Amino acid sequence: MKVNGTPMRTIWLNDDGWSVDIIDQTIFPFSFETLTLRNVSDCARAIAQMYVRGAPLIGATAGYGMALAMREDATDAGLSHAYDTLLSTRPTAINLKWALDRFNTVLAPLAPDGRMRRAYREATLLCDEDVAVNSAIGNHGLALIESIAKTKAPGEAINILTHCNAGWLATVDWGTATAPIYKAHDKGVNVHVWVDETRPRNQGNSLTAWELGQHGVPHHVIVDNAGGHLMQHGRVDLVLTGTDRTSANGDVCNKIGTYLKALAARDNDIPFYVALPSSTIDFSLHDGIANIPIEERCGTEVSHVLGRTEDGIVQRMQLTPDGSPLANPAFDVTPARLVTGLITERGIAKASTNALAALFPMRAGNTA
Amino acid sequence: MKVNGTPMRTIWLNDDGWSVDIIDQTIFPFSFETLTLRNVSDCARAIAQMYVRGAPLIGATAGYGMALAMREDATDAGLSHAYDTLLSTRPTAINLKWALDRFNTVLAPLAPDGRMRRAYREATLLCDEDVAVNSAIGNHGLALIESIAKTKAPGEAINILTHCNAGWLATVDWGTATAPIYKAHDKGVNVHVWVDETRPRNQGNSLTAWELGQHGVPHHVIVDNAGGHLMQHGRVDLVLTGTDRTSANGDVCNKIGTYLKALAARDNDIPFYVALPSSTIDFSLHDGIANIPIEERCGTEVSHVLGRTEDGIVQRMQLTPDGSPLANPAFDVTPARLVTGLITERGIAKASTNALAALFPMRAGNTA
Repeated sequence: MKVNGTPMRTIWLNDDGWSVDIIDQTIFPFSFETLTLRNVSDCARAIAQMYVRGAPLIGATAGYGMALAMREDATDAGLSHAYDTLLSTRPTAINLKWALDRFNTVLAPLAPDGRMRRAYREATLLCDEDVAVNSAIGNHGLALIESIAKTKAPGEAINILTHCNAGWLATVDWGTATAPIYKAHDKGVNVHVWVDETRPRNQGNSLTAWELGQHGVPHHVIVDNAGGHLMQHGRVDLVLTGTDRTSANGDVCNKIGTYLKALAARDNDIPFYVALPSSTIDFSLHDGIANIPIEERCGTEVSHVLGRTEDGIVQRMQLTPDGSPLANPAFDVTPARLVTGLITERGIAKASTNALAALFPMRAGNTA
Repeated sequence: MKVNGTPMRTIWLNDDGWSVDIIDQTIFPFSFETLTLRNVSDCARAIAQMYVRGAPLIGATAGYGMALAMREDATDAGLSHAYDTLLSTRPTAINLKWALDRFNTVLAPLAPDGRMRRAYREATLLCDEDVAVNSAIGNHGLALIESIAKTKAPGEAINILTHCNAGWLATVDWGTATAPIYKAHDKGVNVHVWVDETRPRNQGNSLTAWELGQHGVPHHVIVDNAGGHLMQHGRVDLVLTGTDRTSANGDVCNKIGTYLKALAARDNDIPFYVALPSSTIDFSLHDGIANIPIEERCGTEVSHVLGRTEDGIVQRMQLTPDGSPLANPAFDVTPARLVTGLITERGIAKASTNALAALFPMRAGNTA
C-alpha cells in the first residue's frame, strides 16, 4: 500500500540483490523509518524486538533470515543454527515455525552451494504468496462491500468498523481485514472506517489509523467503548476484523474486545465478517471457546501506555494507581453464531463446520 | 469511605465553622491532596476546573458556594451574583442547576442577615441527604450481593464488574454503584471488583481503582475490551454500573461502553444492575435511545491521555498519528430490555415504565 503516496511492501529485497529492508514498526505512529537487515542476527532481532509483527510478516522476515544465513554459512550446521536462532525469537508464533519448517524442508536436501540461491527464491515466493492470498481475500471482500454500497444512497459512505490491526503492516501487503477496504477505496467506492484504538496495545491507534491515513482512506479513530453506540444509531454498515486462529466450526479467536463488537453487531442486525488466510484455520479444534487457550499478558500493558509528550519524546507513561492489581487477557473468542461470514482466499464461507469443510475439503478431511 | 485507613467524605466543613475542604480530583490517581475553599470564586473554580466532579458532589460544592457567598454579601445582588457565577461553571450539569435553584428558593424569601446561617444549614442538609440516598442504595444492593453469595462455594469471591466511576468520589460518600460493594465488603462478604479502565477519560483507572484500593476492596483493573471474555468464562457474577440519566421506561444513559457490557452480560446470563438516585430518572422521556442526546466531546480525549512518566511527571501524551481524525461520543444508552434491575434508594425496580411508576408514583404521575 502507499506511504507518502508511494506504493510499498512491508519487507523487500534491496537493489543490491541480497540485503533486505523492513519498516521499523516500533516507532509508529510517530515516525516512519526503514531498517536494513544484513544477516540472520539482524532478522532475529527484528522479530524478537517487534520491529516487524503480524504472523505473515514474521514468517516472511524469518524466510529472508534463512536466505541471509545461507549467504554466510550454507553448511548443515549453518542451516541448523539459523533455524534455531530464528525459532527462538517468538516461541509462540505458529506461523514462524511453519515458515522455518518450509525452508528447512526445501534447503536440507540440497548441496550447500545451492542453498543460498534457493532460499532467496523461496523467500520471494513466500512473500508473493502472502500478497496473492491477501489480494484474493480483498477481492472477495470487495464484492461484499459493493453489495452493501448498492443499498446506500448515491455518494453515501459505507461505514466499516474494524478492531486491532489486521492490516497491511501485519502482512507483506494488503493486510487481511484491510484488503477489502483498500480494494474498495482504490476502486472509488466511498468507504469510511471506524478504527477501534484497541487497548491495551493500541494497534488501532498506532498502526491501522497510520496505514489508512497514509493510503488516503477516510477514517476516524474511536475508543473501543464507542462501537456499540455507533451501531445503535445506524452509523456502522459492516464490522470487519481479522483473526489469529479460527476453529473448524468457525469460532474466531481475535484481539480482546472483538466479541463485544460481534454482540453489538448482532443486536443491531449489522453484518460481522472476519477476514483470514485459510492457514489460520485450525481444523483440529471444534470448540473455540473451550479449546483455544487465551494468553494472559503482562499487566504493564494495561497500566502503562506508549505515547509522545508535547516535547516530542516518545515514552511510556503509567495510567493506574501505584500498586493497582491488573489483569490482561489478550484475546477473546467470538462464537460462530455471531459471525456472519469468513472471508478467505477461496471465497466467503459461513462460520460453520460444513461450510468450512466444503471450501477446504482436503484440510478439513485430514483432521476430521 | 476510607483514605489511608481514615474515614472521609469528599467535601466537608472545617473546624473553623465556615471554610470548606475538598479532595483535589485533578491529580488522581498519582497524588492525594485536599484544597480549602474560602469564597464563591474558589467554589466556582473547583467545579469549572473539575477539582470536583460527579453530579452529587458538584451540587454539594455549589451549595457550599452559596453559603460562602452569603458570608461575604447576603444582599439580593449577592445572591443573584453567586447563583450566576456557580451556574456558569458547568452549563450542562443538570444537578448543578437543581442545587442552585433549591438554595435560591430557600434563601430569596429571607432577610439578608438570616441567609448565611440558613445557607450553611441547607448545604449540610444537602450533603447528608446525598449520603443517606447512597447508603440506602447500598443496602438494597447489599441484599442482592448477599443473595448471589449464597449461590457460591464458601470463601469463593463474588466477582462484580463495574464501568466508569459511579463511586464515592462522585458523591459526598458511598457512591452509587460502589455503595453496595462497600457495604458488602464492610460486612465481610468476599467481593472482588473488575474495574473497566473506561476510555477515553480513564475514570476507572484513575478514580474507581484508587478509591477501592484505599478502602481495601480487592479488585483488578482491566481494559474495556476484556469484560466480555471474563463473562464468557464464568469470571463475572454481577455487572453493576451507575447512570447519568434514566428514562421513564428504564433505558439507561451512562458512560460510553456500558451498552457493550450489558450485551455481554445478557449473552452470558449474568445479572446487569444499575444503581441510581431516583433524582436521575427523567420521567418525561419514554425512549432513552431516541430521546437522550449524546454529547460528542473533544477528540483530544481520544488522541491524548494523562499519565505519569518514569521521572514522576504527570502530563498529557499523544497516542494517535498526527492529524488522525477522531470521534468521541461520551455516553451510550443501554435499552431497558438488557437491564436486570434498577437499584434506587427506595428499592430495586425492574427497568420498566410500570415498575418505576409503582416505586415513584408521585414523580411518574407528574409527567405522565
